[in-house]
Amino acid sequence: MASSRERAFRALATIGTSLDGYIARTDGDIEWLNERGAQAGDTGYDDFMARVDTVVMGRNTYEKVLTFGFWPYEGKRVAVLSTKLSTSDPNVTVHPTLDGLLDALAAAGAKNVYADGGQIIQTFLREGILDEITITTAPVLLGAGIPLFGRLDRDIDLTRGDTRALGGGFVQTTYTVNPGATG
Amino acid sequence: MASSRERAFRALATIGTSLDGYIARTDGDIEWLNERGAQAGDTGYDDFMARVDTVVMGRNTYEKVLTFGFWPYEGKRVAVLSTKLSTSDPNVTVHPTLDGLLDALAAAGAKNVYADGGQIIQTFLREGILDEITITTAPVLLGAGIPLFGRLDRDIDLTRGDTRALGGGFVQTTYTVNPGATG
Repeated sequence: MASSRERAFRALATIGTSLDGYIARTDGDIEWLNERGAQAGDTGYDDFMARVDTVVMGRNTYEKVLTFGFWPYEGKRVAVLSTKLSTSDPNVTVHPTLDGLLDALAAAGAKNVYADGGQIIQTFLREGILDEITITTAPVLLGAGIPLFGRLDRDIDLTRGDTRALGGGFVQTTYTVNPGATG
Repeated sequence: MASSRERAFRALATIGTSLDGYIARTDGDIEWLNERGAQAGDTGYDDFMARVDTVVMGRNTYEKVLTFGFWPYEGKRVAVLSTKLSTSDPNVTVHPTLDGLLDALAAAGAKNVYADGGQIIQTFLREGILDEITITTAPVLLGAGIPLFGRLDRDIDLTRGDTRALGGGFVQTTYTVNPGATG
């Protein structure tokens, strides 16, 4: 069982998915999301980013971000959780273990951490260290892809916050994650 | 590719899911949904049922309904799509093929058909014969179970209708299914 870890930061996620729960096609493609997202209007992303001082991502998300052609996290501390990544990129620190990552976040004084990407969201959920998640659902079924959520060793209850209809047929709901029983 | 079939009825679905897209646990259990559903308030189910004259389901859903201890579809035509089911139940007709089912619905003059359960929803989506789906999402992650959606041979676009927050942290959104290209 995951136990509640001592930590000084809140972990927040915001992510877009298809109606069938995929964050990307199997090959990583998110054009289906971007093309529809252009009609969504204000998704709240800028407000979200203004709340966080630190971004944590896995290697897949990091490598996807590198394809954007610009660095979207200027002014944020960025940490990559990966056992494989080797990089001299001065924008990020790399942490091969979750405990090492959490120690580094504590040492850096992180207060509000963006859990960015499916792998980090799944890891943080399993470990009981995700506090809030905003899901923005696109009105499309893909039939296959990289799922937002994964296996768990217990049910995880959430409390619904705001729900709103965006442009382009998107629906956005924010949930807080209820603390589980400590194991 | 699925082609648009000639048909005289509209097919509608309404279904509850977990936030990670499961309609039941792997063993078919839906107690997690029922216990939370008690706090949802009016889910619109009675209004929905008043719109339909016919219910179509797969064998798994039929066998689940039999465990309820009462027959919830009094006054509705009920058709089961199954190659395996053999029953003398006077409440239902059984159809081993989709074409046979559709012919029977046409012959019976079905106008508004409830596509009930994950298998029928997936089959109707793949075949291009689902017109509308209402998804009522419970604020819980199960981590595993029977998924609402399945594989597709193409993207399926939907148009969002009403979105509303129900009690108990449920969110309910109705989508119409956009006609796909005929194959």
